[in-house]
Amino acid sequence: MTLNAKPDAVVQNTLELDSLLAASRALVEVELNNLLPPSGAAPEKVHQAIRWSVFAGGKRFRPALLLAIGQAFGAQINELIRTACAFEMIHTYSLIHDDLPAMDDDDLRRGRPTCHVRFDEATAILAGDALQTLAFHAIADDDRLEATTRIALISELARAAATPDGMVAGQALDMEAEARQVNGAQLEEIHRLKTGALIVGAVRCGAIIGHADEKELAAVTVYGSHLGLLFQITDDLLDITATAADLGKTPGKDVHARKATYPSLYGIEESREKAVNAHRAACDALEQIDRPTDVLHRIVDFILYRTG
Amino acid sequence: MTLNAKPDAVVQNTLELDSLLAASRALVEVELNNLLPPSGAAPEKVHQAIRWSVFAGGKRFRPALLLAIGQAFGAQINELIRTACAFEMIHTYSLIHDDLPAMDDDDLRRGRPTCHVRFDEATAILAGDALQTLAFHAIADDDRLEATTRIALISELARAAATPDGMVAGQALDMEAEARQVNGAQLEEIHRLKTGALIVGAVRCGAIIGHADEKELAAVTVYGSHLGLLFQITDDLLDITATAADLGKTPGKDVHARKATYPSLYGIEESREKAVNAHRAACDALEQIDRPTDVLHRIVDFILYRTG
Repeated sequence: MTLNAKPDAVVQNTLELDSLLAASRALVEVELNNLLPPSGAAPEKVHQAIRWSVFAGGKRFRPALLLAIGQAFGAQINELIRTACAFEMIHTYSLIHDDLPAMDDDDLRRGRPTCHVRFDEATAILAGDALQTLAFHAIADDDRLEATTRIALISELARAAATPDGMVAGQALDMEAEARQVNGAQLEEIHRLKTGALIVGAVRCGAIIGHADEKELAAVTVYGSHLGLLFQITDDLLDITATAADLGKTPGKDVHARKATYPSLYGIEESREKAVNAHRAACDALEQIDRPTDVLHRIVDFILYRTG
Repeated sequence: MTLNAKPDAVVQNTLELDSLLAASRALVEVELNNLLPPSGAAPEKVHQAIRWSVFAGGKRFRPALLLAIGQAFGAQINELIRTACAFEMIHTYSLIHDDLPAMDDDDLRRGRPTCHVRFDEATAILAGDALQTLAFHAIADDDRLEATTRIALISELARAAATPDGMVAGQALDMEAEARQVNGAQLEEIHRLKTGALIVGAVRCGAIIGHADEKELAAVTVYGSHLGLLFQITDDLLDITATAADLGKTPGKDVHARKATYPSLYGIEESREKAVNAHRAACDALEQIDRPTDVLHRIVDFILYRTG
C-alpha cells in the first residue's frame, strides 16, 4: 500500500524519476565494481563478503541523491561518482555491523541472508571495517577533483559517519533507547544522527563538488535534513503497513523489538502528517536555490509516496 | 628476560630513547585527548569506551615512529602530531575489534579488561568503528598541512589499514590460517599485512610530511618493512619467553591458540637470527638516507632488545 494517495502529476514524475534512479544505480554499480577488491584476490572470504553486502540489490538512494544534487549545481557525473560510491560504502558497512548478533541481530536483509549469516561474524566485522576504509580511500584517490575539494568531502563524510554528530552516535543512542521510553525530541535526535546525517552529508557533498556557495550550501543542508526526517518517518510507516515482499525483510520488526518509531509515538495519521510537513519544508528549502531543482523536488515526492 | 644480550653502547642509547619515547607518548596523549569526543558528551557509553581503549597505557610505538621519521626529515612536531594520532586511532580500533568474541576473544589487554568486557560487544563494535572514522577526520581537518599532503597521508593510511594491501587483509589471512598449517612465506605475508603495513604506513607518512624525495621514500619503506618484521618476530618470541607482568596480557596465548608464530615454525634460536637479520636490513636501509638517522637506528635497537 502507499502512504498517501499519489496525485496524477506525481505519478508521471515518478515514472521519470524511476528511470533516473535506475540510471544512477547502474552507474554506481559499475564504479563500485571497479573500486572494490576482486572477490578472487586473497583474502578471498572477506572480499566475497564485501561484495555480497555491497551488491545485494540496494536502492542506492544516497549516491543517487548526491548525483542529483551535484548535477543541479552543474557538476559532471565523473566528478561525482566516486564520492557517491563512498557514501554507499559507508552505508553498507553500517548495515553489516548493525545486523551483527551483538547489535540488531538480523538474519535477513533485502531478502537475502545477512553478511554474518552467509559468512561468519568475524568476516562480517572485517568486511565492514574494510568498507569504511575503502570509502575514504576512494575519495582520497579521486584525481578528477582538486585536493582541497577532496579534503572537504572527506571531512564531511567523516563527520556524517562518526560521533558525536553522525551515524555512529545515532546507532549508539538507538541502542541506549531500547532499554527505556523515549520522547518525540529524543526519537528525532536518534534519527537525525542515525539516518539523517549521512543523507545530509550526501547532499552537501554533491553541492560541494558543484562549487555551491555558502548560502546554497546552507539551503541544501536544510533540504537534506527534512528529506532525512521524511525518509525515516516513511520507513517507520512502511515497517507496519507494507508486506514482506515489498520490503525484502520482515515487516513489524520495529514493533517486535519494542523500538520507538513515529507511529508508536504519534500513531499512523499524525505520522503521515509529519511526513507531509517534512516534505513541504524540504521543498521550501529548494526555493532558496536558483538552480534547476526539478529532480530534487521529485526525490522528495518519491520518498513521501514510496512503497518500499 | 631480553632476547639478546644488549651491548653497552645500546644500553646508553636505550636510556636516551626511553626518554624520547616518553616525551612522544606525552605529546600524543595530549593531542588524542583533544581529538576525541569528551566522555561526558552523548552518547556517553561509546565515548567512554573509545577513551577506555585509547588511554589504556599503550606504548604509542607507531606515533613515536612517525614523529621520529618526520623529525629526521626536518618536519616540525606540530605538523606531525595529528597524523601520528591518526595511526594510533587506527591501531586502537583494530585492537578493539580483534579482541571481540567472534575474533580473538580476548578478555585482557595491557592488564585491563578489553573494551567489550568492560562495556559490551555492541559498544565495542561502535567504538572501533568511530575511532576509524575519527582517524581520517583528524588528518582531513589538520590545517597545518597543505591539502595535497593531507590527501597523500589519507591515501597511505587507508591503504595500510584496509584490504588487499593492509591490516584488514592480514587479520583475515590470520583467521584463515588458524584452521590449517602455514609455511614461512605465508606467515611472513600475514605479518607483513597485519602488523607491518601500519608500521610502514607510519614511516612513510612521517617522511611525506617531511617532504622526502622518491629515493628517500623508497629507503624508509624498506626500513619500515624490516622494522615491522622485526617487531613481529620479537612479539612472537616475547609471547613464549616473557612473563605476564612484562606483557600485561597472558603469555603463551599464541601457542595455546595454535597460531603459527616464528618460534613455532623455526624454533627460538633461528627466530632470534631472523630478528638480527631484520635489524641489520633495517639499518642498511638507513644508510641510503643522508639525514640524521641516529634515532631511527636506536628504534631498531629498541625493538630488537625489547622486553615487553
